[in-house]
Amino acid sequence: MDGVLIAGAGMTRFAKSAASLRALAAEAVAAALADAGLAADQLQAAYVGNAVAGLVTGQEMIRGQVMLRTVGIEGIPIFNVENACASSSSALHLACVSVASGQHDAVLCLGAEKLTHEDRTVGMAAIGTAVDVELQAEAARQATGRPRSFFMDIYAGMARDYMARSGATAEDFAAVVVKNQHNGGLNPRAQYGGELRVTDVLASRTIVDPLTLLMCSPISDGAAAVVLVSERAAARLGARGPRIRASVVRSGYRHDAGDVRAGAAAHAAQAAYAEAGLGPSELSCVEVHDASAPAELMIYEEIGLADPGEGPALLASGMTRLGGARPVNTSGGLLSKGHPIGATGVAQICEATWQLRGEAGARQVPGARVALTQNGGGWLEDDSAAMAVHVLTSD
Amino acid sequence: MDGVLIAGAGMTRFAKSAASLRALAAEAVAAALADAGLAADQLQAAYVGNAVAGLVTGQEMIRGQVMLRTVGIEGIPIFNVENACASSSSALHLACVSVASGQHDAVLCLGAEKLTHEDRTVGMAAIGTAVDVELQAEAARQATGRPRSFFMDIYAGMARDYMARSGATAEDFAAVVVKNQHNGGLNPRAQYGGELRVTDVLASRTIVDPLTLLMCSPISDGAAAVVLVSERAAARLGARGPRIRASVVRSGYRHDAGDVRAGAAAHAAQAAYAEAGLGPSELSCVEVHDASAPAELMIYEEIGLADPGEGPALLASGMTRLGGARPVNTSGGLLSKGHPIGATGVAQICEATWQLRGEAGARQVPGARVALTQNGGGWLEDDSAAMAVHVLTSD
Repeated sequence: MDGVLIAGAGMTRFAKSAASLRALAAEAVAAALADAGLAADQLQAAYVGNAVAGLVTGQEMIRGQVMLRTVGIEGIPIFNVENACASSSSALHLACVSVASGQHDAVLCLGAEKLTHEDRTVGMAAIGTAVDVELQAEAARQATGRPRSFFMDIYAGMARDYMARSGATAEDFAAVVVKNQHNGGLNPRAQYGGELRVTDVLASRTIVDPLTLLMCSPISDGAAAVVLVSERAAARLGARGPRIRASVVRSGYRHDAGDVRAGAAAHAAQAAYAEAGLGPSELSCVEVHDASAPAELMIYEEIGLADPGEGPALLASGMTRLGGARPVNTSGGLLSKGHPIGATGVAQICEATWQLRGEAGARQVPGARVALTQNGGGWLEDDSAAMAVHVLTSD
Repeated sequence: MDGVLIAGAGMTRFAKSAASLRALAAEAVAAALADAGLAADQLQAAYVGNAVAGLVTGQEMIRGQVMLRTVGIEGIPIFNVENACASSSSALHLACVSVASGQHDAVLCLGAEKLTHEDRTVGMAAIGTAVDVELQAEAARQATGRPRSFFMDIYAGMARDYMARSGATAEDFAAVVVKNQHNGGLNPRAQYGGELRVTDVLASRTIVDPLTLLMCSPISDGAAAVVLVSERAAARLGARGPRIRASVVRSGYRHDAGDVRAGAAAHAAQAAYAEAGLGPSELSCVEVHDASAPAELMIYEEIGLADPGEGPALLASGMTRLGGARPVNTSGGLLSKGHPIGATGVAQICEATWQLRGEAGARQVPGARVALTQNGGGWLEDDSAAMAVHVLTSD
């Protein structure tokens, strides 16, 4: 992909928030526009990712128009894009295509989500619609009303399979949490963060064996936005970038769930490396979809950071820690930064932007030049329903 | 817009159907693929418009993936696009951009909707979310539980204003219905259709003054799909077209609601004419968003078929009837063909395709060469929240 630069990035702190969806969106959009030095009326189109507002807030159908009108954005094309937890990275892909193709010079991509609700089961039930609700009606029904997302049942099953396949242990999963909570502690926009020990993570309440509470991403509210511009607009604005070098979306394939090189994440990552003309060894920093702690280890293998079965060894080597050669989830990831599902994809892009600009503060990866983000959404049979991988470079 | 051809079009009959959303989608997709002479695994991406499945069927977030897996479409990028009643024409726009830009050679655009539900208020309440539900919470609450869509209150208000402004009468609105039901009677895929008199329409039950039951589009289920291909793929497939010459999406502007040249429909139409390099006098046939009968007359003015206030005179002239110089809603329109909201935009494109190929049977416009479709969605303050206009030519 050529000719697509990030001119501005902005996000709210992720948290269980009293603010409305539109207020969260407004804060993120204002920050991204200010960062880009652009006025709202200079945007030519907007691509809005949100997953569950229809079910949680009652605002279906024209969510983006409602959110964006509060900040004076109207008239332009506005597209509401839904792909479960990959909603806003899917929206970002469409935004990238519109700029790369020359259709637009300056567009907005917003991800926003309000998951908290006075009735806690509402958010949980909404998350449970990211499967085939008809085929999985019985399992979803059993999950309804329990204080956990149906997805943690899915992740726990995957984790057990992964333990059998790779020798990974609950201690390995806990070590992912320790790393990411450390990183989140350095990120002022993270919902949680701080210093934990492996034993703290293992001692937290069991959600579904082998997952403990701290191995599961939290319920979060928040919004993240980026302004994408063409080469021409970037020159005019003096935009610093980074550049988006690859933007790939795939949906799940039917495949052997144990074959880490056969699923949507692997396919999307391979396509993204090819599009960007680089490989995993060139990555300076990586944001992955650690909705549960075991997922991060599996994704190491899927995106080619580690060979099959070698995820735990990669983590243990320290390479993916801050200070290592290839830090993963410097933002804190979904586990620590939080996971307002429709906002997560663009929030990963915000972190990549700040790292590549050298603006990541205490969690800065020195000299970061290439970043990859991986964001998955939904579940069908044996694979993510949607998968997005982006590669960004500092120049 | 250049280099985007329709290789295949297919749709279900629109009706209150016992079939599931995925079964409706499967029927439309299979028909479009067969028409294109393409296998499911030759598609490179899919853009899926649906408005209310999350609220009506419980399937939120990954609707397209769930629908398309039933026909063996998986792995490729799938984008779920929501823009109220303009959901599938918004999806079509994104599909057009992907082909016009050279990103893809063969993509699917599907619109599908299941509005009927054993509890009739469910569909009505879902339709009511196509406004700013927070700002209009009280009005929407009052509308809930009544056997009509909140949108008919909005349309009735617009109709009263339009009558004051243009001198239009209830008889004029009834004459739109007579015309469109006649056309629908010639369309085997229409929900209704047949010969009515103006007095029949006026005598039907009042929904909200001045709208009678027959002046309101019905509750419908259905699906429509098109396969878009590049020039290169069209040559390989021997695709007949038509070609998409303009694809424009806008969102609503704050403006004087009485100024028909100031709203989203007028802006989108003007942009589409400019993009296609032609004007309203060159249109052979037109499909417009007659969700209520008065809307068709207003849209005549908004898209430049008639001067402001001259909608009723244009209708009375016979020009927009079959046999007239510029037939409008040859398919029967939303009033007669039906309005499964997320499917409506692509269904308009199907009608344009068949007209431009000379395949429209008893309702064929002789020698049709240029078609325009106009599809609006949602409502914010004083304008449609989303508006899509497409222009197609036979070669």
